[in-house]
Amino acid sequence: MKTFEFLEGGVTAAQGFRACGVEAGIKYQGRKDLALVVADKPVPVAAVYTTNKVAAAPVRVDRERTASGSAQAVVVNSGCANACTGGEGVRNALETARLTAEELGIDERLVLVCSTGVIGVHLPMDRVASGIKKAASALSAIGGHDAACAIMTTDTVDKQVAVELELDGKTVTIGGMCKGSGMIEPNMATMLGFITTDALVHPKALDHALREAVEVSFNRVVVDGDRSTNDTVILMASGAAANTILTPYHPQWQYFVDALTTVCLELGKKMVLDGEGATKFVTVRVQGARTEQDAQVAARAVSKSALVKTSWFGLDPNWGRVIAAVGYSGAEVDDQKVQIYYGDICAYDQGRVADTALLKAMQDVMRKRAFEVTVDLHLGEGEDTIYTCDLSYDYVKINAEYTT
Amino acid sequence: MKTFEFLEGGVTAAQGFRACGVEAGIKYQGRKDLALVVADKPVPVAAVYTTNKVAAAPVRVDRERTASGSAQAVVVNSGCANACTGGEGVRNALETARLTAEELGIDERLVLVCSTGVIGVHLPMDRVASGIKKAASALSAIGGHDAACAIMTTDTVDKQVAVELELDGKTVTIGGMCKGSGMIEPNMATMLGFITTDALVHPKALDHALREAVEVSFNRVVVDGDRSTNDTVILMASGAAANTILTPYHPQWQYFVDALTTVCLELGKKMVLDGEGATKFVTVRVQGARTEQDAQVAARAVSKSALVKTSWFGLDPNWGRVIAAVGYSGAEVDDQKVQIYYGDICAYDQGRVADTALLKAMQDVMRKRAFEVTVDLHLGEGEDTIYTCDLSYDYVKINAEYTT
Repeated sequence: MKTFEFLEGGVTAAQGFRACGVEAGIKYQGRKDLALVVADKPVPVAAVYTTNKVAAAPVRVDRERTASGSAQAVVVNSGCANACTGGEGVRNALETARLTAEELGIDERLVLVCSTGVIGVHLPMDRVASGIKKAASALSAIGGHDAACAIMTTDTVDKQVAVELELDGKTVTIGGMCKGSGMIEPNMATMLGFITTDALVHPKALDHALREAVEVSFNRVVVDGDRSTNDTVILMASGAAANTILTPYHPQWQYFVDALTTVCLELGKKMVLDGEGATKFVTVRVQGARTEQDAQVAARAVSKSALVKTSWFGLDPNWGRVIAAVGYSGAEVDDQKVQIYYGDICAYDQGRVADTALLKAMQDVMRKRAFEVTVDLHLGEGEDTIYTCDLSYDYVKINAEYTT
Repeated sequence: MKTFEFLEGGVTAAQGFRACGVEAGIKYQGRKDLALVVADKPVPVAAVYTTNKVAAAPVRVDRERTASGSAQAVVVNSGCANACTGGEGVRNALETARLTAEELGIDERLVLVCSTGVIGVHLPMDRVASGIKKAASALSAIGGHDAACAIMTTDTVDKQVAVELELDGKTVTIGGMCKGSGMIEPNMATMLGFITTDALVHPKALDHALREAVEVSFNRVVVDGDRSTNDTVILMASGAAANTILTPYHPQWQYFVDALTTVCLELGKKMVLDGEGATKFVTVRVQGARTEQDAQVAARAVSKSALVKTSWFGLDPNWGRVIAAVGYSGAEVDDQKVQIYYGDICAYDQGRVADTALLKAMQDVMRKRAFEVTVDLHLGEGEDTIYTCDLSYDYVKINAEYTT
């Protein structure tokens, strides 16, 4: 895949979008908790949602609305997930969209709604209403940063990525923001992601592009293996770049998808780096698996193992826990063929254990903020990569104290 | 199921068995690390092994040997798992059995071998050999406690259970010991269990009884969701009680199976109570599921969720994390039908959240060393129960510091 130059900015990096983040006082005091992202006109939209069977009210509303392929605005609140809130929850999500549409003077069916925060609490609609009023007048073509701050929950930093590429001689920008630091697992964990581009893209092609990008980016990050009720990634394309309309038949289609994938992957990595209590960013590569599927289940088992994650935190190149996780993952494995590396150093080589003299070198690898663990199964061509983090005291602290 | 009276003791509670635990210096200094359990003569044996595809050398050896249905001795070491050790590992396991047979003057094919400890290290055979010599002369009809101590790794207490029952007017005893405190998951986690009985049981029936008992006991405990390479449960029946031989056609068959299940379940609960860093013993009951299978996957998802486990540690009745785990478990769920209880207090009632006035009462429930979390899905008759623990700072500490 081609590499891309990163720009400053997020959802307002591309032309044709304004955004903002304001204090609505939904749960937290003294911080932004309501964001708007608005396109200048109705634009093609694509979205991917949580696979959790307990889907939050806004997810149910958005699923229907994005099926039309067109949207103009997204309103997002943090502090309240509006999940497990029944009919009233759905009415509140619809009312949030209606109020936003009213303030913006657009059709309410063009407004999408996202929520993140505590489950089982109803949205305080009076504060949402006044927040929306405030937000509508705060929209700005440089409002991406405020929006990225307003969607945070236990996140410690805002997360934005933007790239530039040339299509048909026109400069195209793709930018995005996301939130998420716990409950992060492949297949859409507690995360919200919003991506905008000024590329002109056919609505159906936009959906294909997003699914392809999400599969190898957001679906390849793991913090703790919990999947949430609210996960959503929304992509809007304004067409302001005036390129020839993109479909899979456009000669630069894959180039565009690669750029989109880059934005999604960098946003995903930022979530892992900001994983609750994370001190290490670990890339788990499985190669030589019998099948792609085997590689994926093995990499996920390693990435989700509490024993493996605590060994990373303890700077312990405990390859025994890695091979045990591969062993119960369901992937084919022959322990006399496996190689396990920390960085470039082989800890376990097809039945032979690395000399203890290498222990210090392996710990030096693990002392870095980011390192790779590679498992080569030597059984075939299957490979997969998962981006994950360690399990530290602070993960326990953050989650034992994040009270209902 | 009938309840049973508990006796003191473990593997030597039943007649016809001797045991011991000695210091062989395999890894640790100044503690027992080699155990023997020996029947007075060859006896029927049944066993259940890890489902991990990376099976340790002793598991491979024992799988073949227990297929014969007969055994007389088990030799167990802690400190070294003899896993991922290839052909040499298998040769060392066989040699351990041969040395034991030689000291006991029995056929080496009647000796089973178990190991637990660090993966990827070869058994120090000189120390194993001298340990076996020592052990053979230390065997005693009251040696169960020493044996239970010798098989411990990160366990903080030895784990023994024994019950007595009457069959055909004869007193029958079933006793056992186990080790395990981390890497504990349903389907045989890092645990070794050894159970003896003086009941006279048909060898094939013994296998049925063990599988039935393990399914609802050892396979229903979760500490961290990791499954190991060495898991083994072995059951030997001496027949010394001289009851009419037990088969499923014996009128008291189910009574015997219930007693065996009780021993396995109590041993399993002891592992959870001694779970690494555990401060809470939590019984997760799922009822009203569409199917038994749904109940099981839901209860397991709740029991394995790092977010749920940390909330228990933090005395936070965070039912939102519970319902989210049920939602991604794969079980059918309608969040407007679900009820979630902490003890007897309903935290979430079919769309209605408990009054905040009940929060203190729920925290009082959670302040106890042991409590129940019940999820009623109101979709059918399926139910299941998992025994698990919380996730604390100490889990991280223990596993970050348990070095290769």
